[in-house]
Amino acid sequence: MAKKSGRYAFTFEKEIYVSGYGNIVGKKEGQGPLGNLFDRIEPDLYCGKKTMEQAEQYLQQTALENALHRAGMERESLDIFCAGDLLNQCISSAFGFRESDVPYIGLYGACSTMALSTLIAALNIEAGLAQKAAACTSSHFGTAERQYRFPLEYGGQRPPAAQHTATASGAVVLTTQKSNIRLHGGAFGSIQDLGVTDQNNMGGAMAPAALKLILDYLQETRTTPQDYDLILTGDLGAVGAAVVVELAQERGVNLHQNYQDCGLLLYDRQTQDMHAGGSGCGCSAAVLTAYVLPKLAQGTLKNVLFLSTGALLSPTSVLQGESIPSIAHLIHLKGEAR
Amino acid sequence: MAKKSGRYAFTFEKEIYVSGYGNIVGKKEGQGPLGNLFDRIEPDLYCGKKTMEQAEQYLQQTALENALHRAGMERESLDIFCAGDLLNQCISSAFGFRESDVPYIGLYGACSTMALSTLIAALNIEAGLAQKAAACTSSHFGTAERQYRFPLEYGGQRPPAAQHTATASGAVVLTTQKSNIRLHGGAFGSIQDLGVTDQNNMGGAMAPAALKLILDYLQETRTTPQDYDLILTGDLGAVGAAVVVELAQERGVNLHQNYQDCGLLLYDRQTQDMHAGGSGCGCSAAVLTAYVLPKLAQGTLKNVLFLSTGALLSPTSVLQGESIPSIAHLIHLKGEAR
Repeated sequence: MAKKSGRYAFTFEKEIYVSGYGNIVGKKEGQGPLGNLFDRIEPDLYCGKKTMEQAEQYLQQTALENALHRAGMERESLDIFCAGDLLNQCISSAFGFRESDVPYIGLYGACSTMALSTLIAALNIEAGLAQKAAACTSSHFGTAERQYRFPLEYGGQRPPAAQHTATASGAVVLTTQKSNIRLHGGAFGSIQDLGVTDQNNMGGAMAPAALKLILDYLQETRTTPQDYDLILTGDLGAVGAAVVVELAQERGVNLHQNYQDCGLLLYDRQTQDMHAGGSGCGCSAAVLTAYVLPKLAQGTLKNVLFLSTGALLSPTSVLQGESIPSIAHLIHLKGEAR
Repeated sequence: MAKKSGRYAFTFEKEIYVSGYGNIVGKKEGQGPLGNLFDRIEPDLYCGKKTMEQAEQYLQQTALENALHRAGMERESLDIFCAGDLLNQCISSAFGFRESDVPYIGLYGACSTMALSTLIAALNIEAGLAQKAAACTSSHFGTAERQYRFPLEYGGQRPPAAQHTATASGAVVLTTQKSNIRLHGGAFGSIQDLGVTDQNNMGGAMAPAALKLILDYLQETRTTPQDYDLILTGDLGAVGAAVVVELAQERGVNLHQNYQDCGLLLYDRQTQDMHAGGSGCGCSAAVLTAYVLPKLAQGTLKNVLFLSTGALLSPTSVLQGESIPSIAHLIHLKGEAR
């Protein structure tokens, strides 16, 4: 049985390992600082499909295939598949995985989905329901812009706090077979809402959820930021990441050294005109699977807290003047390379 | 550790019980055959709120409060809360639960969410992450019609196979404290898609997923329909339920006697002009919490398979000519009243 350290933090009893990870990104992500780390870069937003929604389904299928390939597994050998995405009714996940006999758990955590799906996959292993479990998520610039803001053809202007939805997908395969990357534990976050109503400042809206979960996790596990090589949030971008560092400092927690944000790693904001950085479920999924997990496998990272953060708004809620509730989920990864 | 009987069916090792259940429904549901069984009937689609989306959030909050009340618990004593709904980005759940410090797992299973959220809540208990876990879902006629079809003011005509989205919410609270209702086991289903493209025949689209999971569960547990008092699907309605019974018969499984569908129980189709019956996450949630669980508590039901079924379409996927993938999830309930 998993062991809880408090309201949020827990460690798995079983030794759960990342057996495979995979990803695929779009052109802009491929041109960013992590460009040479991705499994595959698609030059075209349509990925050769008829619609961008089909392209996003293809991203999930490909990321999962890449993860399964690294794990040396076939898709049908999975015991459970956990996935979600940003599109209405999570169609990228459901449609991408409809040709399969693998039990499926659909999730909605907005951009927190990579950590959420990984935790639910691990929970299936911990509870004895699965030996091989996969987690996947995606986002796509074109499908997300159309759904949340405007069609690309409209050419809407974006304020400085706005982030760029990554065209990307990442997937992990978990088993109890020893590898160099252990999923030590994690935490499901609670929904926070400090009243931010600006949908062009989602980093600011999500910062409180990320901050709370980081502070709670550190306190419950009696650790400090210096105990970790890296504390990485999903996609707070420049605005949200600065808020987290500053508010943590106010509470006596120093995140100046080993804290980073996937939204700031994915693009070169200056040369790529990316405003506050990257966002979207695929942002943290791609950075996790292309940057963090390989470093853990190689031994250059040993102890990592990875938090995906989600803004739980909808276009309807924005039009109705609602504030933006947000959430974070955390996975605690350990590199066991010698 | 939970014990799997095959690819889908599992039983929990821990003794997991339903400690509380609650619900709330709208006017039409209150006028139906189960009207006197619900905790609360709201006469107005707005429930006194400014928007129907806020009304749906209120439905979830109230159903959960009713469930917690029966369990003799406060909301903040929960270790985990699992919820989802039909609205884009699942705002009924996220917004309904934003004022809380309880860890939150957001799910998307369309109308399969009542069984899905109950299983995920139970999984948290089984894995040792929770002692008190809650599951909740909702649907609302006004919010769903506007999102999936037309605004109510448009007065669109509905074909005979169409179902009526229930205005309803249901919630359960699970613990390991002995009660008369035990959650024995369950099964996460896989996504099925036989190519139905008519969004006004969601029962037909969902029938294959329900049928497959019923047949797999019976086979893996080596049981027959006659071993159960009731096999209840979520919201297949008249078309989908007939398909399930007929196709089961073709496979040598007789569902003529103790099979029912929540979509056919919730309304009087003739006098209430409900076409093929009820649908929506709230349909199976309300029938489970007002009809099934009380009978299990009283001892008039002893052994029940409850399947919620979800059509994983979106308005965008329909407009793009896609077929409708569907899923079912199953919970196996036992009444332990003497």
